[in-house]
Amino acid sequence: MKKHNFYAGPAILPAPVLEQAAAAVVDFEGMGLSLLEISHRSKEFTAVMEEAIQLPKDLLGLGDDFEVMYLTGGASSQFYMAAMNLLNDVETASYVDTGAWSTKAIKEAQHFGNIEVIATSKDKNYAYIPKGYHIPGNSTFLHLTSNNTIFGTEYHELPETDVPIICDMSSDIFSRPIDVARYGMIYAGAQKNLGPAGTTLAIVRKDLLGRVERTIPTMLNYQTHIAKNSSFNTPPVYPIYVCLLTLRWLKEQGGLAVVEEKNQAKAALLYNEIDENPLFEGTAAAEDRSLMNVTFVLKDETLSDAFLAAATAANCVGIKGHRSVGGFRASIYNAMPQSSVQVLVDVMKDFAQKNG
Amino acid sequence: MKKHNFYAGPAILPAPVLEQAAAAVVDFEGMGLSLLEISHRSKEFTAVMEEAIQLPKDLLGLGDDFEVMYLTGGASSQFYMAAMNLLNDVETASYVDTGAWSTKAIKEAQHFGNIEVIATSKDKNYAYIPKGYHIPGNSTFLHLTSNNTIFGTEYHELPETDVPIICDMSSDIFSRPIDVARYGMIYAGAQKNLGPAGTTLAIVRKDLLGRVERTIPTMLNYQTHIAKNSSFNTPPVYPIYVCLLTLRWLKEQGGLAVVEEKNQAKAALLYNEIDENPLFEGTAAAEDRSLMNVTFVLKDETLSDAFLAAATAANCVGIKGHRSVGGFRASIYNAMPQSSVQVLVDVMKDFAQKNG
Repeated sequence: MKKHNFYAGPAILPAPVLEQAAAAVVDFEGMGLSLLEISHRSKEFTAVMEEAIQLPKDLLGLGDDFEVMYLTGGASSQFYMAAMNLLNDVETASYVDTGAWSTKAIKEAQHFGNIEVIATSKDKNYAYIPKGYHIPGNSTFLHLTSNNTIFGTEYHELPETDVPIICDMSSDIFSRPIDVARYGMIYAGAQKNLGPAGTTLAIVRKDLLGRVERTIPTMLNYQTHIAKNSSFNTPPVYPIYVCLLTLRWLKEQGGLAVVEEKNQAKAALLYNEIDENPLFEGTAAAEDRSLMNVTFVLKDETLSDAFLAAATAANCVGIKGHRSVGGFRASIYNAMPQSSVQVLVDVMKDFAQKNG
Repeated sequence: MKKHNFYAGPAILPAPVLEQAAAAVVDFEGMGLSLLEISHRSKEFTAVMEEAIQLPKDLLGLGDDFEVMYLTGGASSQFYMAAMNLLNDVETASYVDTGAWSTKAIKEAQHFGNIEVIATSKDKNYAYIPKGYHIPGNSTFLHLTSNNTIFGTEYHELPETDVPIICDMSSDIFSRPIDVARYGMIYAGAQKNLGPAGTTLAIVRKDLLGRVERTIPTMLNYQTHIAKNSSFNTPPVYPIYVCLLTLRWLKEQGGLAVVEEKNQAKAALLYNEIDENPLFEGTAAAEDRSLMNVTFVLKDETLSDAFLAAATAANCVGIKGHRSVGGFRASIYNAMPQSSVQVLVDVMKDFAQKNG
């Protein structure tokens, strides 16, 4: 019995992706070998890498002014690598603090340059996205976390500024079209909307590279990986392949505008239930609600265990909220079918009838 | 038709490992979910991680004075991370240069301290392991590359010294028992003897940690990963699981002494043919020949294409030598069955009969 997978990450992948991913472990493209045991220099894998680099460009509409890399070490490694590669010691970068991941990004960037936190929503346990703050025009970049997995908030509009935005999109990349001209860099750990754990997508605008004066170990230098098509050393072959399968699936859906429509519909279904059901309430400010991670609580907390049991009985897994928010979190990434969201909504309705 | 896989890396994995690895992509341990889409904090995966950390200790006979980590970024990232974590700016470390990977390790370590190259075999295109050199007693550590994949050489004896050895064992880890007391650190990219590409095993002696005065980004600090059982951030779940399956398989073989016996037998079979067959000759010094990567050439180079064609016809793949040595290289890691080595030997015998 297949479960309805609401985990926050690593997270649900499209069913056809998992089928192809399993087949590749047995025999990759009729080679008589598993994908796990072929050279990353083989023509079969170099073709995988080329397509995996091309598809994000196609899906996001990136011009030749952007480079695409597959790195390792998670988004957590981009917290320091972005500043290490793009910010000089004497320069200042602006950061907006919208939760745990922003806070970590701020901490790690401080190794490399002046980091100014220009806005935060910490005062309300990160339940909203700050707005109307001043962005110093001399900032080398502005760092944002577009979707806050733990707190269930998401930017639905970018702040107005000419400063290039560096964005951690780990949990909402490829969930909607974006205005690429606003970004200097985008990075995302694969394990939410893109693939399994083990690789990190990084997209960087070429003109921001080669500016810093510090010396950087070869493996930490973006230019190393760009120059070698993310194969300077042995890349994480299998995670990248599963990303490719997911990227192909996204393209087959009809592109990001179609994907966004589906995501809007799924989120509306669940948020409507939260708002209409007398037992539940959302935790994020209505205008900043995430389309990816829907956070909510039971107004009567003593019913929480019973609701979790009801959801579990309906094969809904991974809905327990993060300890810093409590309550529940349903992660409904791209790969989540609306039918699974409906199952959870039905559990909520049924629970209200029995406990209302 | 399954191929005989002589690739240097990513490389052959045991057939039962691949079977279980494929099954886990469909449904992991009856969870109703793929291993690719479950939380790294789930009890199912934390059990994987704990066993994956324990088994190297069991197999190598490591005491409580060692810590085991699963990192990312390949052995190439350990080239700088080892020095960054273990060597102060004012300290000196000794390096032996036995080929391309040693050379890279030397280059990257130079970012962090004084790096002294105390011996090299570059004079003979790295066809031997240097011996009889002086190791300064004030070295913080001595760095060795135990097996040189490209050149087909391997240490069969460690140099005499009290200086702790830091060893890149990427291509011969778990191929034989080792005297762990000699090592301060061992690291290995998984994709040769341990698993698929995407994770790096690092073993470090506790007393060497916490000595350096520089500040280190959180993700680059070994202590971060040790403290959190390699799950400070989302680890590369699937590559680590496949490593676990391989580690279990190694244990089932009867441990490293048994594994070494098999590796000796396989290597002897192939080296004997190289020595006895009038058409072939080995490229590495006889006393330093690798048990993992057997490098050889045809005495008459004009026969090379025909030999490659004969091997390919017999389903032997991945035997083309690295461009810096030329000729051929048969990688016969732990997972390589003797029957596959026999197929290659038969091709060589047959080729000599037809071309002798």
